[in-house]
Amino acid sequence: MVPHLTTSLTGPLQELERQVLEQRPEIERWFRTQWREHEAPFYTSVDLRNSGFKLAPVDTNLYPGGFNNLNPEFLPLCVHAAMSAVQKICPDSRRFMLVPENHTRNLHYLQNVAVLKRILEGAGLTVRIGSLIPDLKEPMVVETSAGEKLTLEPIVRKGNRAGLDGFDPCAVIVNNDLSAGVPAVLRGIEQPILPPLAAGWTTRRKSHHFHAYDRVAENFAKLIGIDPWVVNPVFSQCGKVNFTEKEGEDCLAANVDFVLNEIREKYRQYGITEQPFCIVKADAGTYGMGIMTVKSVDDVRNLNRKTRNKMATIKDSQPVHEVIIQEGVYTFENVDGAVAEPVIYMIDQFVVGGFYRVHTERGIDENLNSPGAKFVPLAFETDCHTPDCSGKPGDTPNRFYTYGVVARLAMLAAAAEVEELVERDSAPEVRAANA
Amino acid sequence: MVPHLTTSLTGPLQELERQVLEQRPEIERWFRTQWREHEAPFYTSVDLRNSGFKLAPVDTNLYPGGFNNLNPEFLPLCVHAAMSAVQKICPDSRRFMLVPENHTRNLHYLQNVAVLKRILEGAGLTVRIGSLIPDLKEPMVVETSAGEKLTLEPIVRKGNRAGLDGFDPCAVIVNNDLSAGVPAVLRGIEQPILPPLAAGWTTRRKSHHFHAYDRVAENFAKLIGIDPWVVNPVFSQCGKVNFTEKEGEDCLAANVDFVLNEIREKYRQYGITEQPFCIVKADAGTYGMGIMTVKSVDDVRNLNRKTRNKMATIKDSQPVHEVIIQEGVYTFENVDGAVAEPVIYMIDQFVVGGFYRVHTERGIDENLNSPGAKFVPLAFETDCHTPDCSGKPGDTPNRFYTYGVVARLAMLAAAAEVEELVERDSAPEVRAANA
Repeated sequence: MVPHLTTSLTGPLQELERQVLEQRPEIERWFRTQWREHEAPFYTSVDLRNSGFKLAPVDTNLYPGGFNNLNPEFLPLCVHAAMSAVQKICPDSRRFMLVPENHTRNLHYLQNVAVLKRILEGAGLTVRIGSLIPDLKEPMVVETSAGEKLTLEPIVRKGNRAGLDGFDPCAVIVNNDLSAGVPAVLRGIEQPILPPLAAGWTTRRKSHHFHAYDRVAENFAKLIGIDPWVVNPVFSQCGKVNFTEKEGEDCLAANVDFVLNEIREKYRQYGITEQPFCIVKADAGTYGMGIMTVKSVDDVRNLNRKTRNKMATIKDSQPVHEVIIQEGVYTFENVDGAVAEPVIYMIDQFVVGGFYRVHTERGIDENLNSPGAKFVPLAFETDCHTPDCSGKPGDTPNRFYTYGVVARLAMLAAAAEVEELVERDSAPEVRAANA
Repeated sequence: MVPHLTTSLTGPLQELERQVLEQRPEIERWFRTQWREHEAPFYTSVDLRNSGFKLAPVDTNLYPGGFNNLNPEFLPLCVHAAMSAVQKICPDSRRFMLVPENHTRNLHYLQNVAVLKRILEGAGLTVRIGSLIPDLKEPMVVETSAGEKLTLEPIVRKGNRAGLDGFDPCAVIVNNDLSAGVPAVLRGIEQPILPPLAAGWTTRRKSHHFHAYDRVAENFAKLIGIDPWVVNPVFSQCGKVNFTEKEGEDCLAANVDFVLNEIREKYRQYGITEQPFCIVKADAGTYGMGIMTVKSVDDVRNLNRKTRNKMATIKDSQPVHEVIIQEGVYTFENVDGAVAEPVIYMIDQFVVGGFYRVHTERGIDENLNSPGAKFVPLAFETDCHTPDCSGKPGDTPNRFYTYGVVARLAMLAAAAEVEELVERDSAPEVRAANA
């Protein structure tokens, strides 16, 4: 389970690691004060990119789907963290209903659900699975990639409570990113829902997250005395794009130009000779759909039909009208010659593990989380929490500690983001519109 | 690192495990509600005895000294739990002063201090060691059993703050059981002290702890529908004993008689054919000193000089005047033919590991924690938190989960106990007497 890592570690990243390690007590104290002001999401995963000169989050998932990829030795860490979350959020709960994605043919995803169930059971909860699969009338048994059996049951709504036949849960834990909208069966129920429904892709926007991250990165950079750019990708956004109709091309071109120029300036400042690039992706959505790599304004001016179709819709056939244009961060990490990016998993405020997403057929400037892609999950050897103080910045445990710090920055941004989404969601005019 | 266990698992214990496992969600919820009312001690270790028909705590240590015996793979669990404790108790702290025992020749104990330091550093604290060694004028470097170097520094008092030369800690963490009294250098300081000074053996009494445990065991037994005796050893106490002067023998005999009769009745009820015994030990104190096994009233009537001397003083030459007479619980667990008892370690409200105290030269009715004794620590294979639901009650992970539950009951009693001690300590008349 030990990943064989080769990384290009020169210049500012070692500097970043050195500063992070030196100021660990200050950093941990800062996190503690932040968690007094913000409630950590129940669980979070963060995709990081490590270019050697920059270590930054590129995606923050509030419905993480890869618990099956974590090192099984970290299961007790997950259980502790889940106990801590339950203690804070809903100490009176005994029964949880877990609501997963509908894709029953992705057996690895089903194994993620099985592991998640085991974590919650380890925390002392009775867990049953409530499915949103349309027309599911009876409990359905499915088998995961590891051969475990799961029973998916139709969710039953009774007045203001959602549950299953003969099972009235105290809380609902959602592992479905709600790309297809907020399901009526869960709307307005009196049980706590984790994360809140407003955190789903119906209302969530990547640009909103990265605005929140701007503030977090700014404060963190001030705390330890670094340039925030080292942990923060430049981004911009376009609100009215229609790839099929070729609408919004000017907005896209202008923003790509802006982002590329910003990167160019930073690269010049730090003496980086790589070619700047950015990633254009749907502002709402996940699963690596609706994503493209752009190296010049021309790249968005002359989109062929194939690319336009690829960008036009994402998961659950949702059309793409809003896009985020994000600084591309090269990944200079590789595992056995294939490009790799670290994914960090957290429950409550704790880092519980991570793995490398590895792609044998992609370049260092491409998105690795793409459908149909081969990827080889590799569990981290250590837990991201306990750096070896005597080691050098580039040593594996220290690298992972720094990953855990940057991932927690993204989680902190997500916490603030979700608070705003919930507040907006409970505003009277929105309630009326949703009714 | 896998302990080879042979246990005699028939009758009520399997029944207890079955009930514990079946009612896990109810139990965990109950613990959550309890931790809303009581603050878990910073750290706790609990000695358990497992007789097959009974699983009970026999000693609860608020200054655990065996972190070096835990499975190193559980270090991340310790770090998480310490982060959780610091978050709750003193989120603003960055610098901790760790105050260990004075015995610098016990290299295993020093290794415990090294591991504890590493755990706290893992939680993001700067840690330095403040020593209570009398006449220590300069920092002293000592080497642990694992060859690690530790610097012990003299504690410096400046007004209402205790610290080290050039180091002003935010909090003081004590790993010294204060058998020799509350050190003047720590008395009345403004920094938080963990655990509070009132939890030291100067003021703490085992009988007080087990009175608190009576209430906890009663409530827990009601919760899951068992006889509280199954998890609770009968006990009594004598307040005015002087072994050297042969004073208090009548009180001791009467209480031994009472405890043995109580056990006899329970053994009859459950059809247990073993011979009842009890353990007489100093009501204040630790390290297995001042302890004897008693099987009849005659055993305390005719104490020879050697035994009287053994019982007369404990650690730091403190005289014994108060004793607790506790039901002896046979240990039917053994590791490679030697008798063994489980010791469970907790930080904050979390079980973080445990080990077997193994004694090759002691019987199943003797105290295993004795000075000069050979014992072979064996790290548990699992974490006591995640039972395998599909397994049978006697299976190792389930056994350990039940251990974790009973140990947490003792910790809960310690929490209530410490609250009372602190309250008593801060009462005006006590303050005046201490001044």
